[in-house]
Amino acid sequence: MAYSSLDESAIVDYVKNVGLYEQDESLTVKEIGDGNINMVFYVKNEKTGKSMIVKQAYPYVRCVGESWPLNQDRIRIEAEAIEKEGELAPGLVPKIYHQDDDMHIMVMEDLSHLGVMRGQMLTMTKFPKFADHISTFLANTLYFTSDIYMNPTDKKELVKSFINPDLCKITEDLIFSDPYYDHERNNINPALKPYLVDVFWKKPELRLEASKFKYKFLTSAESLLHGDLHIGSMFGDSEETKVFDSEFAFVGPMAFDIGLLIGNLLINYVSWSGKTDKFSEEQITDYRDHLETMINDIYNLFEKKFIANWNKKSEDILAEVEGYQQHFMKELFSDTVGFAALVMIRRMHGLAHNADVDDIENEELRKDVQVRMLELAEEMLMNREKYSKIEDITGFIKKNVELNKEAVVA
Amino acid sequence: MAYSSLDESAIVDYVKNVGLYEQDESLTVKEIGDGNINMVFYVKNEKTGKSMIVKQAYPYVRCVGESWPLNQDRIRIEAEAIEKEGELAPGLVPKIYHQDDDMHIMVMEDLSHLGVMRGQMLTMTKFPKFADHISTFLANTLYFTSDIYMNPTDKKELVKSFINPDLCKITEDLIFSDPYYDHERNNINPALKPYLVDVFWKKPELRLEASKFKYKFLTSAESLLHGDLHIGSMFGDSEETKVFDSEFAFVGPMAFDIGLLIGNLLINYVSWSGKTDKFSEEQITDYRDHLETMINDIYNLFEKKFIANWNKKSEDILAEVEGYQQHFMKELFSDTVGFAALVMIRRMHGLAHNADVDDIENEELRKDVQVRMLELAEEMLMNREKYSKIEDITGFIKKNVELNKEAVVA
Repeated sequence: MAYSSLDESAIVDYVKNVGLYEQDESLTVKEIGDGNINMVFYVKNEKTGKSMIVKQAYPYVRCVGESWPLNQDRIRIEAEAIEKEGELAPGLVPKIYHQDDDMHIMVMEDLSHLGVMRGQMLTMTKFPKFADHISTFLANTLYFTSDIYMNPTDKKELVKSFINPDLCKITEDLIFSDPYYDHERNNINPALKPYLVDVFWKKPELRLEASKFKYKFLTSAESLLHGDLHIGSMFGDSEETKVFDSEFAFVGPMAFDIGLLIGNLLINYVSWSGKTDKFSEEQITDYRDHLETMINDIYNLFEKKFIANWNKKSEDILAEVEGYQQHFMKELFSDTVGFAALVMIRRMHGLAHNADVDDIENEELRKDVQVRMLELAEEMLMNREKYSKIEDITGFIKKNVELNKEAVVA
Repeated sequence: MAYSSLDESAIVDYVKNVGLYEQDESLTVKEIGDGNINMVFYVKNEKTGKSMIVKQAYPYVRCVGESWPLNQDRIRIEAEAIEKEGELAPGLVPKIYHQDDDMHIMVMEDLSHLGVMRGQMLTMTKFPKFADHISTFLANTLYFTSDIYMNPTDKKELVKSFINPDLCKITEDLIFSDPYYDHERNNINPALKPYLVDVFWKKPELRLEASKFKYKFLTSAESLLHGDLHIGSMFGDSEETKVFDSEFAFVGPMAFDIGLLIGNLLINYVSWSGKTDKFSEEQITDYRDHLETMINDIYNLFEKKFIANWNKKSEDILAEVEGYQQHFMKELFSDTVGFAALVMIRRMHGLAHNADVDDIENEELRKDVQVRMLELAEEMLMNREKYSKIEDITGFIKKNVELNKEAVVA
């Protein structure tokens, strides 16, 4: 079928024509995409209750328009990444019902009975099973697509089929470069600007460390990554976790996925310092304790499961070399800390922010939180090799999260 | 055209049918491949003198036979790598006359007026312009195919089109794994075996360092490499250098090409310690001085030209970050030293040796040279981060190259 960009009514015809619904069914359809990139349609037969999500990649970035063209192959990559993730981490991604590489459409399971995690975390919802779920997702997707596990021929085919330049470019620019310059794409709280000008942008060492990670992101083809694994890319409740929005998938450095997730959780952890008007000290302490345990558990369970996978079956003989696993896990940890720090930084004054901090209405108070976040991230980035376990990071953040205290270096 | 493996007479028909010669020309043809992998035919019209080289990839490894199948796409990769190298380093590779991806054939310039460098170096031929030529080859092919220079979309296409699993697998096994084990593929001088059993294989730290470089080789997609850049892959005389045999090309870690070349030259340097019966001390000292200058010049000129390329034009903003180039060049150097050491090791007791050492007929004397080579390589590998310039390496080797002395650690 020749490609065309479908509107709501064309979507109804489409899902019937490809056999997902009968021709005589009466369907409602609504465009619900709140992401920046793709069109997302919610389709439902109100009578039977049968619903699904249709995602189409227009030939440009949705939130910008035709002036920012974007390779439509991203929807194939997303669908194939979800399929692969589903194989490796069953039950933790949506089911895919249909994939159409000509129309650049995929149709998947409706998970609207679950909420997006970020929104829920803004109101202190707890996710007691999340650490267990997401550590399985990370340990399995990262280990089973690595050269430790895969035979090198299949691994290289995997690299080839997930070459994803347009979406990688977004990360390359928005995470690793823009925040270290006064770049026009940045989105800067006016009250924060003086700190950036007088302090942050005057530290060439930050730009240098960010550049090392950028080069790693550009060249290190370790494992199939989700590529955008933050709490806005997940549905969840007290029982379930579903990871979605895999359009950034590519074969890249393992630590990026883990660091991006942990960085996002640390942003939420720190953000409460700007919300003492809306939440009591007790509530904040309680939720932070939940987050601290969650973050520690995520990394520790990830590490345990990753090592268990490794010890159970590996392809390359290097997997059995004395000391190699230990060396590998040590590097993975310090890289994770580095990527987490870069993610905390980019969400303060880069193009795309997190609601966690942006919903602090008072500009000055928001600035104070942003400055403290940047200071904490700087310490993590510059000293990442001194930390040996995740409790060192969460402990350091905990000790320094109050706005009215001097930051204490770890 | 459907694929078939051509013999000498079929090659004559082939070159006429594709228009490289007229139908009525009288041609001689001879299979001259002394490599292990492909068929190489020398075709000539004795009357006109017009000659060329036809290379065909049979569906298996030539020196082993059908029991070791090998992806025939290697000949496309070789031809395209040579084209790319020729664009970036004009005059330093053979001209390609014809490429046929169905028949897995490429036809190229006859360079038989030049000899292969390795053979000539065994008789102490000097190559006064080699350092200048090969440093240009390295600086240009490595820089202009890197993420520092290329835009990331084109770079990722380059990665995709040079995915080369079968040939990479050979390197992965033969360089980074087999020599660190008593593997059946190894080719071991019986007199050397006790040293391997009692000393070399008892050092887990060597296996560990080799494993770190193996993982880098597997995952680091930095630049288009030649992939087998030793002095048996080059024609040369006092005026010219031509690099051939690019079938191992893929996008990998830059330092691998540089290290492989330097490791091979160091093998030649050390090997003379086993040839004092055939060459005078004066001859050996003189040739070693030539090699020392050559090796120093290769690295220093490479570095100078690479940095000049970088400073002239770069794509990624990280290229201009204060301190980044310095950091990059430092890592590149220590990785080069590491890869050089691994190459010295694999040529002593791995599957494929160099004539430089293997032509020492006396098994005991050959063993003494091999042991000293392994000791020197070990020191380079384990302490690669302590060296800061190529003169540190050549100086260390020079000081320790005599067989009847204790090795002095750098």
